[in-house]
This record gives sequence, structure tokens and C-alpha cells, in this order.
Amino acid sequence: MNTNRPLILISNDDGFFSKGLSELIKFLRPIGELVVVAPDSARSGYSSAMTTNIPIHYQLVNREVGVTIYKCSGTPTDCIKLAMHTILDRKPDLVIGGINHGDNSAVNVHYSGTMGVVIEGALKGIPSIGYSITTHDLNVEFGACGPYIQQITRMVLEKGLPALTCLNVNFPTTPSFKGVRICEQSKGQWVNEWETITRKGGSTHYWLTGNFEDSEPNNEKSDHWALANGYVAITPVTVDVTAYSLIDELKTWFK
Amino acid sequence: MNTNRPLILISNDDGFFSKGLSELIKFLRPIGELVVVAPDSARSGYSSAMTTNIPIHYQLVNREVGVTIYKCSGTPTDCIKLAMHTILDRKPDLVIGGINHGDNSAVNVHYSGTMGVVIEGALKGIPSIGYSITTHDLNVEFGACGPYIQQITRMVLEKGLPALTCLNVNFPTTPSFKGVRICEQSKGQWVNEWETITRKGGSTHYWLTGNFEDSEPNNEKSDHWALANGYVAITPVTVDVTAYSLIDELKTWFK
Repeated sequence: MNTNRPLILISNDDGFFSKGLSELIKFLRPIGELVVVAPDSARSGYSSAMTTNIPIHYQLVNREVGVTIYKCSGTPTDCIKLAMHTILDRKPDLVIGGINHGDNSAVNVHYSGTMGVVIEGALKGIPSIGYSITTHDLNVEFGACGPYIQQITRMVLEKGLPALTCLNVNFPTTPSFKGVRICEQSKGQWVNEWETITRKGGSTHYWLTGNFEDSEPNNEKSDHWALANGYVAITPVTVDVTAYSLIDELKTWFK
Repeated sequence: MNTNRPLILISNDDGFFSKGLSELIKFLRPIGELVVVAPDSARSGYSSAMTTNIPIHYQLVNREVGVTIYKCSGTPTDCIKLAMHTILDRKPDLVIGGINHGDNSAVNVHYSGTMGVVIEGALKGIPSIGYSITTHDLNVEFGACGPYIQQITRMVLEKGLPALTCLNVNFPTTPSFKGVRICEQSKGQWVNEWETITRKGGSTHYWLTGNFEDSEPNNEKSDHWALANGYVAITPVTVDVTAYSLIDELKTWFK
């Protein structure tokens, strides 16, 4: 391993075989030494879940100059934890998740396994970035994302990120992008979340689906607005989730 | 269902059969109409994970005056989403997770399925509280928690919580408590996270374990300090994870 180049630890939640991951590798290859430790099957919607009740394992998939790829039986969060414990010989300079097939803007930051990767990186004190595109199309064209991913990744390598923060970067699906917007997490919620499935014999099952209802669709500061208007949305995310603004009020409750 | 009493939706990540849940029911019964929708097996460390790739189902376990209990094949987050879609006939007045067997202070807020319940409640716009005790002992005595749970729950019912915030309440394991402290999320990280298991034949597996290393052990504002000193720790949590303090700086990167 060439230790003069930045060491970049990569994972995702779509699995080690996904197009978004192989495109990310292509874009990041000129920038650093890449080690990929990604789930051995899709783990979408896994959030920061960890595997606590069974042991996990990992396996080398491919090694070539500058890129080593492992698959892991654990969650996206497990992949980062295990890579840092047993695969990497030094602390990585960056942790990167993606490119996710699906929008991780707005409240999706809470459910996303890709952002689970990034949050884990930030909790470990490593500058971390999640890249996602706002479509689940497995064959989407990622070409327009490349220059942005290279620029953002190089900026973070050069400048770092403050402790306990990371970046959630989402790409629109327009053929070209209008530029970058620094955003806030959109407010709103998922609605119509369950598809009812009635089986032969009459038993009822429920399959998660839904639409996101933006409660501030005209908020030009939000990541949803940026994406809807053709911009690359960069939302800085904190892993210190203390609601500081509520502390003084709560103190008056228990005087 | 008596609609004059507050409707309280309860879930957890230890499963519908856990002692922490049955104790919570006992404590909350005088306060409201309780509907429990809890996982059918343990889902510790599930964070805000959702089940996206298969349908889920739920089943009535027990119904008596004031308390109805369902088990669900999904994650803690799924339980709240599904309950609100198909089980409850109105929006609950509170969502409560717990009582979790295990500490959800500090960075554990990110991994906890109990806090997944609470975060989902907050994302749905419902005042939400997570209760946890700092031991994994399945037979721990919860008696001292009762009056605090009743007081905190009643306060939240009376006063509400601001949008996009919820409470993460952790109990120490001392036989009695010194009172309540309103806290910040402790800073620090998990270390020594993997136990290596070598199987016959030589294959190596890794089982998650670890110790939390507090980077500010003397910070009297932190939830860890409160718990270590015999206080009930209430940490207000935001589900708007935008790192607002970073927005202006990032804007200068992409001028």
C-alpha cells in the first residue's frame, strides 16, 4: 500500500457489486488509495444498524493497484468498524459512502445505510462524505457526478471537517447540474408508507413504500429545493444530536 | 378505546416480551390508554433501520382494559410507522420507547433501536421519549425508575416538545437516584469493538463488543457524567441534524 497517497475507506448500502460503487471507485481512483469494505448484499434503509447477535466475516473480492475490494456479511456501519479494526493498517484520511442509488436528502439521512457509513466515519473522528443520486434506477448515468465528487472530495481532504460533522451530498437526475448549493435538511415527512398485500388464505402483510411530503417546498435553503432545481445539494450533518436549544427550558421543568 | 385519555404508542428494541417493556406498561398505565407494537424478537442496535425488501406483519398478543399489545415482524421504526398507518385510529399523544436494557446515552443514540422508535415519533410530529437503563441485566430492578417515568411522561404530555425534538432519558443502576440532570450527549467513541472468533478449520469471524471511551469524562454537562454520579440523565435530541455552524464556511469553498 502506497502510504504517501490519501487512504480512502469506502462503503455503501447497495452492496459491493452496485454500479454506484464502481462509478465512485472510478472517480476517486486518481485521488487516493482506495479500500472498499461493502456489504455482501443490499442493505438499503439500514441506518446506523449494527450486528450484535451474531459474528460477521469479510472476504477479499479483488485487489489491483490502488483499489482493494472486500465484501462483508455485516451492515454498512459494521463494515466501517471492522475495516478500521482489522483490514486497514492505519486510520483512513477519509470515509466515503455511496454512490447511493436513491435520495438521502431531507429526513432520509436518518434511514440511510449510506449515511450510516458516513456517521460512523464521523464518530471515529474521520472526515466523511456520503454521495447519493435521487433515483433508484440501477443503470442511471453517473457521468455528471464525477467532477463534483472529485472536487468535493479534494476540498475535504485539503481543508478537513470540524469534529462531529460530515457531509451529505445528493445529486439531481438532470443530465447536467447548475452547480453546488450548501443546504439545510428539508423538513417534512413520509406519507402513504404501506402497501397492503393480502395473501391467499386472507393473511395481510405490509410492504414499505411512500411519498415524501415536504412541509416547506419553497424553502430555497433546503436540500429538496436544491435538488428539484437542478443543483448538487451539500447538507452538512452533525453527529452531536443534542437539542441544545431545549436545555434551558427543560431545566425549568425539574427545578 | 377511551378517547378522553391520552393515547400512548409504545415500542422497544428488546422485543414484546421484555421485562423493561412490561415494567414501562405498569408505570404508564395510570397515565393513558396504551397501545404497544413491539418487535417479535430482539432488535438491539437496529438504529432507525426500516424493512424495505420484504413485507412485514403484526399480530395481537393481548388486549385488556387500557392496554393492547401487538407483536410485529419488523424493526422498531417499522413498528411505529405501521401502528400509525393501520393499528391506531388516531394520532397518538405520545410515542415512548423502552425501557431499554442497556445505556443509550452518548453516541449510543445513533445505534439504538429504542431511540429509533423515538426519532420516528419525532419525525411524525409526536412528542416522543426514550427510556433506558444502563445495564443489560434482563432481571434488573426497575422500581426506582417508576416515579421518574411518570413525572417526565406527565410533563411532556402537559407541555409538549418543540417540533423536531425528543427526549433520551437514561437511568443509572444505583438503587436510588439523586434527581434529574438535563444533559448534553457525551463525546467519545467505542474502542476494542471486535472479539475474534476462530472456527475449526481456521476461518475467522468477528463479534461486536467494545468499551466506550469518554473523551470528556469530567464534563459535568454530559449524560455520562450524570449517570456515573447517580442522576437520571435527560438529553434532548434533535432530528434536524443539519450542522448549521458549518454552512457559511462551506459556502466559501464553492464560490
